[in-house]
Amino acid sequence: MEFIEELKLLKEQLRFTEKIDVPEGIDNIVIAGMGGSGIAGKIFSEFYTKLPVYIADDYNIPDYVSKTTLLVGMSYSGNTEETISAVKQGIEKGAYVVTVGTGGEIKKYGKQHVQIPDMGIQPRSATGWMLMPLINGFGAVKKEDIEEAISVIEALDINNNECLEVANEIARGDHIPVIYGAAPFKTVAYRWKMQFNENAKVLAYPASFPELNHSDTMALAKTYRKDNLYFIVFGSRTGKISKRISVTARITNSKFRIVDPKGKSDFARMFHIFHYGDYVSYHLSAIRNVDPKDIALIEELKKNLK
Amino acid sequence: MEFIEELKLLKEQLRFTEKIDVPEGIDNIVIAGMGGSGIAGKIFSEFYTKLPVYIADDYNIPDYVSKTTLLVGMSYSGNTEETISAVKQGIEKGAYVVTVGTGGEIKKYGKQHVQIPDMGIQPRSATGWMLMPLINGFGAVKKEDIEEAISVIEALDINNNECLEVANEIARGDHIPVIYGAAPFKTVAYRWKMQFNENAKVLAYPASFPELNHSDTMALAKTYRKDNLYFIVFGSRTGKISKRISVTARITNSKFRIVDPKGKSDFARMFHIFHYGDYVSYHLSAIRNVDPKDIALIEELKKNLK
Repeated sequence: MEFIEELKLLKEQLRFTEKIDVPEGIDNIVIAGMGGSGIAGKIFSEFYTKLPVYIADDYNIPDYVSKTTLLVGMSYSGNTEETISAVKQGIEKGAYVVTVGTGGEIKKYGKQHVQIPDMGIQPRSATGWMLMPLINGFGAVKKEDIEEAISVIEALDINNNECLEVANEIARGDHIPVIYGAAPFKTVAYRWKMQFNENAKVLAYPASFPELNHSDTMALAKTYRKDNLYFIVFGSRTGKISKRISVTARITNSKFRIVDPKGKSDFARMFHIFHYGDYVSYHLSAIRNVDPKDIALIEELKKNLK
Repeated sequence: MEFIEELKLLKEQLRFTEKIDVPEGIDNIVIAGMGGSGIAGKIFSEFYTKLPVYIADDYNIPDYVSKTTLLVGMSYSGNTEETISAVKQGIEKGAYVVTVGTGGEIKKYGKQHVQIPDMGIQPRSATGWMLMPLINGFGAVKKEDIEEAISVIEALDINNNECLEVANEIARGDHIPVIYGAAPFKTVAYRWKMQFNENAKVLAYPASFPELNHSDTMALAKTYRKDNLYFIVFGSRTGKISKRISVTARITNSKFRIVDPKGKSDFARMFHIFHYGDYVSYHLSAIRNVDPKDIALIEELKKNLK
């Protein structure tokens, strides 16, 4: 499948109706997943805050995991070593383990396995399939907001000229992208970074308001190499954040490219900028003449670690 | 006080014996704090995993906060608007609220206030004072490990030539530092970023193994501007991580400056690289001829937000 076709699967993925079991008596959630398979858990944790959610993007899980923990192991391939390690630790500690993915080794460890369609795509192109079983299981997002997200994504599929413009601006100066988000879009800033890394083969760095006002701000005015960076900032309808953005740009004399989320609900707005980033990174890969699907180095790394 | 004298307060801070109250029945912890006042909570969450710990570096706290939550509001000045907002939300939800700082508005909201010495220093120079009440309250670190950390810090105070060398290398190429850590030193990578930002007025970017092997790795070989970045990587004694570091450097043809933590215990090793970063950023500020204590822009920002 052409990579652009992978991107266009997103809207359909949000209609995925599978859901993870949420047994009674659960008082905390651990979601284990790496890279492209880890994004879904990170998004979920911004939209569901009725229970503590710990994101394990590593081999280990916290000591407090117990039989009242729901541990969700997410791996598109089902063979990610860190995620399998986290899942095995969860079982030892008596957690209720659910796995999500296309199959692989991980499948055999869960009390439930949520099978997602195996279309041989990149894990990062399957975020909707990984996310919706969590959203559905916890009823974390209203049906109408999910429908709105689908509409917003469809509109972008048809018209993504603005995304091309951003990609062109980045390419024109051989810029490293820096992406500033704010709740509930902190994960989306991280997603853009990952898409720049893997699709366009460009390093990129996320940070978040208001925390960055307590660190980056002093550097923004005087840093080395500011002209080599391209600042993408997600617009916010929260007054305090919106003000922080404009004041930060002004007093540090920084040029921010504002990307304004479209939509009424936070969930739709999140997926608007999420998908926007998909296209920017895709266009940038084309401009740079690199293959967005090429993950040869990651495969080589895995071989070398065995 | 000269900024270098502020740095040297760290070892003494680890002897701070105050502790936060931990009432019975607490089943989760929220630590609210921004920037330099937020680092202590982030470190604590890497060293104490017997209960879920949520780091609120923002205005809001999760829905699940309740009367079984211990909410610790950390603010050196006691007047940080985000932290005050988080503390007020905690009170509304019935959380047991403790505050840590030199005074200010926040002091009046807690059932307990832990007073730290007010020496008019930068909040980021008071990390030990902010951290130890958490460590002591939960008995999170052994006494001998704390003593070891103090020795390791003292040794660095006397001999930090290596730190000067790293600063010189960064300055020589007008480099942007990129810092790669791994558990339990992910927060330290973020700390280095902050110290570069605020002391040396240079942007800097942290990331962590093994997660970065699922994103940055593809970009490391082909990115724009790799020669303008300076990669600092914390050595690891975990076999899998150590292998990931060397394989990643080799297959992406990257030059990593390895900074090896010294010490036996993780706590001492953490503070070794923590303090190492203090000196690197301090030396870099001197080389760049900028004032590490200058936070005029952050003050201007605060004024503009009112």
